[in-house]
Amino acid sequence: MKTASGDPALGGLAAILLRDSCGCAECRDAGSGQRLGGVSDLPADVSVIETTTAGDSVTVIFGPDGHRAVFSRSWLAEQLSPPDDDRVEDAKRLWAASDLGPLPAQSWPGYLADDGQRGRCLAALLREGFFLLRGVPARPGTVLDVAASLGYVRETNYGRLFDVRVEATPANLAYTGLPIAPHTDNPYRDPVPTVQLLHCLATAVEGGDSGLVDGFMAAARLRDENPAAFEILTRTPVTFAYSDATAELRATRPMIGVDPRGRIREVRLNHRSMQPLRPGRERPVEETVAFYAAYRAFAEQVTRPDLMLTFRLAPGDCVVFDNTRILHARTGFAATGQRHLQGCYADLDGAASTLAVLRRKRGATG
Amino acid sequence: MKTASGDPALGGLAAILLRDSCGCAECRDAGSGQRLGGVSDLPADVSVIETTTAGDSVTVIFGPDGHRAVFSRSWLAEQLSPPDDDRVEDAKRLWAASDLGPLPAQSWPGYLADDGQRGRCLAALLREGFFLLRGVPARPGTVLDVAASLGYVRETNYGRLFDVRVEATPANLAYTGLPIAPHTDNPYRDPVPTVQLLHCLATAVEGGDSGLVDGFMAAARLRDENPAAFEILTRTPVTFAYSDATAELRATRPMIGVDPRGRIREVRLNHRSMQPLRPGRERPVEETVAFYAAYRAFAEQVTRPDLMLTFRLAPGDCVVFDNTRILHARTGFAATGQRHLQGCYADLDGAASTLAVLRRKRGATG
Repeated sequence: MKTASGDPALGGLAAILLRDSCGCAECRDAGSGQRLGGVSDLPADVSVIETTTAGDSVTVIFGPDGHRAVFSRSWLAEQLSPPDDDRVEDAKRLWAASDLGPLPAQSWPGYLADDGQRGRCLAALLREGFFLLRGVPARPGTVLDVAASLGYVRETNYGRLFDVRVEATPANLAYTGLPIAPHTDNPYRDPVPTVQLLHCLATAVEGGDSGLVDGFMAAARLRDENPAAFEILTRTPVTFAYSDATAELRATRPMIGVDPRGRIREVRLNHRSMQPLRPGRERPVEETVAFYAAYRAFAEQVTRPDLMLTFRLAPGDCVVFDNTRILHARTGFAATGQRHLQGCYADLDGAASTLAVLRRKRGATG
Repeated sequence: MKTASGDPALGGLAAILLRDSCGCAECRDAGSGQRLGGVSDLPADVSVIETTTAGDSVTVIFGPDGHRAVFSRSWLAEQLSPPDDDRVEDAKRLWAASDLGPLPAQSWPGYLADDGQRGRCLAALLREGFFLLRGVPARPGTVLDVAASLGYVRETNYGRLFDVRVEATPANLAYTGLPIAPHTDNPYRDPVPTVQLLHCLATAVEGGDSGLVDGFMAAARLRDENPAAFEILTRTPVTFAYSDATAELRATRPMIGVDPRGRIREVRLNHRSMQPLRPGRERPVEETVAFYAAYRAFAEQVTRPDLMLTFRLAPGDCVVFDNTRILHARTGFAATGQRHLQGCYADLDGAASTLAVLRRKRGATG
């Protein structure tokens, strides 16, 4: 069967897209599958001049140069599905604590021994934004083993890992017994660490409970209830800063980051390190007032009681969460207590890769 | 002198901004300077009811609660300057190779010994997007020392460092003798590594020359010459992917990332790992055609001969560049040659912090 361009087998895909996707040995490196040339190497006036269908294969001859490409029907069908960005709200299950259901939790030995359990944890990190491991040996440094099980440690000026406990001269309120409102970590860093791990080595006698809030849910509710406030927070750059004896960090980004289609992709909220808005001289004072009102509305969403999941970390518990989405909090505790967590940062791309490779292995054996 | 709200000393700053910026012991932790409460803890109907000026200090009494804050005139003046995001084009010097002037280059011993030299290199990384070190011992692993001198290594599935040389079964075209067009590294990662280092251990007899292109300049020229193409590239999410035996990475972002005010903030361009556009079923084929035309126009800007800075890395040279901005390229070389580079990734926030701390030290002693 031969037909001209416009063959339904091609699903209406543009000729230039098809030509750029050719997988022949002239276009792609046989070993790595990487493209050998760029778009500039292709004729600008590319067209489909002939299509031949045989079984699962569709062969296309392109004009003006007569280049020939073979596509499978499944590949062609796949191209018709919308783009998948696994970091935006559409790819997530947004939750309030009241409707979350069972905690995504596993035991550390089970997680280590069973790829299926590990896969479920990593899937929860991507979908619900967090998971909890129990029975991680409460020995200093073990948080790095947890990070290595899912990706790569992001080292920062705080070290490869950091201790969260009461210090005599704290450079950060985390190192006091004060309560900490829901926040994302390190918004003064760009790129921000996208995964945070907190491993409990010892607990306070009273207080120091942990809270998690789905910041995407809070942002989505803000959009529902107060679209103008949501919009202001997506387009107003805010500076966050941190300074101590050895570091001076600042980053400027909106509190709610959206993709080009307006979908929620990232939240940053941290009262401690937020800098005053810099409206510049030209902007009317009303814009500043509107920004602070929007910020207040978002901060209030975040602290609605039905949103916050509260739990108490016991020694050996390790919580792993998406720091671009999940806000974490803690209640106050007596500064004389022995509460001691160790934390470290990692990144979502590594965790998503680990999950994809696990799934590939299971697909191959299953 | 006592005046009501609207005192010119306050420069028209909003009452809520001032109240949120109060630095008193009730509002800020004395040790860390971090804010103790959030915006929700402040009265929504805050106002300035009294201003008292004395020397460099402006004391403000806020309504309705009578809270009192003291600001310095210099702090107040600073708030009137526009926000500074050091990652957008406004904070950079955009260049074509033809007008760059002398290479920002230093010797490794001088860079190590002299904070001033190190500061100039880091300033060049932020302003021009790169610098070159000479005389870095051509011993494997030394690239990690260079990374440690400016920030923190970003470990990935390629390791803490990676070898760029000809391999028998390359998973990546980087590991062949093929020429490589100007590109940014790892666009399939999110967060993308923001700094790349390449350290030369051995050179090819012929070929294997390096090229650098200012991607912000290329994007700015595209905006001048073809604003519609620029706009398409800022709003079209593109998926980049990479897969080998142990990793499966994908990230979806526009080729040109802009801040909420439309300023260029990040570019991603990599023919090898770019996936076909997924327009979805609803979008007309013309949109795909327009996207590929825009992509071609950008790829052509990037390869204009006046843009590319070409040089030859000698053993001991190490080039450090902003991977969100600078595209790198290499000419082909004989696959039998001994060309051997070691690379690693790091991040801009760490480098900017190192520079800020150096400047603070010099300010304190100077």
